[in-house]
Amino acid sequence: MFYDEEIDNMKNIKLTIEYDGTEYYGWQRQRELATIQGTVENVLEKILSKHVEINGASRTDAGVHARGQVANFLTDSSIPPDRFIYPINNLLPPDIRIVKSEEVPEEFHARYSTKGKLYSYKIFCRDVDSALITRYAAFCPDKLDAEEMAKAAEYLKGTHDFNAFKAAGSSAKTSIRTIYDIRVDKENEIITVYVSGSGFLYNMVRIIAGTLIEVGKDKISPDAIPDILNSKNRTMAGYTAPARGLCLEELYY
Amino acid sequence: MFYDEEIDNMKNIKLTIEYDGTEYYGWQRQRELATIQGTVENVLEKILSKHVEINGASRTDAGVHARGQVANFLTDSSIPPDRFIYPINNLLPPDIRIVKSEEVPEEFHARYSTKGKLYSYKIFCRDVDSALITRYAAFCPDKLDAEEMAKAAEYLKGTHDFNAFKAAGSSAKTSIRTIYDIRVDKENEIITVYVSGSGFLYNMVRIIAGTLIEVGKDKISPDAIPDILNSKNRTMAGYTAPARGLCLEELYY
Repeated sequence: MFYDEEIDNMKNIKLTIEYDGTEYYGWQRQRELATIQGTVENVLEKILSKHVEINGASRTDAGVHARGQVANFLTDSSIPPDRFIYPINNLLPPDIRIVKSEEVPEEFHARYSTKGKLYSYKIFCRDVDSALITRYAAFCPDKLDAEEMAKAAEYLKGTHDFNAFKAAGSSAKTSIRTIYDIRVDKENEIITVYVSGSGFLYNMVRIIAGTLIEVGKDKISPDAIPDILNSKNRTMAGYTAPARGLCLEELYY
Repeated sequence: MFYDEEIDNMKNIKLTIEYDGTEYYGWQRQRELATIQGTVENVLEKILSKHVEINGASRTDAGVHARGQVANFLTDSSIPPDRFIYPINNLLPPDIRIVKSEEVPEEFHARYSTKGKLYSYKIFCRDVDSALITRYAAFCPDKLDAEEMAKAAEYLKGTHDFNAFKAAGSSAKTSIRTIYDIRVDKENEIITVYVSGSGFLYNMVRIIAGTLIEVGKDKISPDAIPDILNSKNRTMAGYTAPARGLCLEELYY
């Protein structure tokens, strides 16, 4: 019964992770490249004296940030579940922080248990790029009409075939997704687009952001969005806005 | 009359500069260390094919940021005054941006012509430091009472001898300064202190921020501020809050 006992001792730990993705090649572990997953796993290996794989909820791309990435891992460590944040943060670089650690039921899986996600996409609009927000916002030298962008966003809400908003490399079985809400906020020179949904295709939020930027520049009419959706054709939608503006805000479970 | 003609050709150019000070040893040029002044002067030297010294309004310390630093320099270049931003920004690293360039009267001197300055000081309050704002805000793991901080700030407004809020190394002739206004803003986990005044002693804004943080933690009573001012004793005021929270927002002329 040794094996069963070992299983019984395993705890499922959920981590909530915040990171500045500027210096990383994305979430997913890669040989010889600095990634978020790799960095956290290396720290866990030091603390637990063995390699532990963590399941990330979302495989964010190079340069993408997170305020609420979620990952889980199984461990028989005697460290109290809510105390993992201290030894991990102590060894992590300052651009990755564990915000919370907690024990969750064994069936919890950061990726497969998720019911949805909230992303934000920031755009900095001024004739000169910002030295202070350049890590966290796309730069747009043109004035953007946020009201037109909000009008276009309305058409994207709900369940649609988002094939026109999917990067070429995507291996998803279906391109039907549900967007719960899109909000376009403007505060001085910064426009933030919040997009929540059941799930997203590869680069979908960045293509939505790029399309809304082109709407804001009056290059695409808000009323063209239904036709773009119906076309299911990637070339009809706007460009893929740069990674630095994107932030994974929250996972829903 | 060759000399006079040369003088007549000189234009006085004012630059408004934004920078992320994280990677720099402050504003002032230093041999073999990366500074803001040194970086901008090196770029100007490439563009103008000779060394030009720029006068900065404020010698910000290592790690301090600016949204509205001002500097001026004299040049006989034929580049239109408002066009300097393009070649300079083109050669500057992305953490330094020239926001504006313009011709100003010959008597304008960025440092001696200033009538006042506005600084901001940001504090991030959460049990875990932020991976996303850590470059731009001091970290405070304790909850701060922003209302008490605002009460303390009231006492600092006006003309006082700020000797208790002056770092030891200061060579200022008098420690009497006028604070025009102090505002304490709270938005979620971020407290921002805005301080405007005629001029500031060495480290004065960071000591004010440190003192207000100790007020927010209930270690110093707001009503103790007049006694601290009257003591003229540096050890009576709070600690010097870290450089990363400080940002030179604006120069007044």
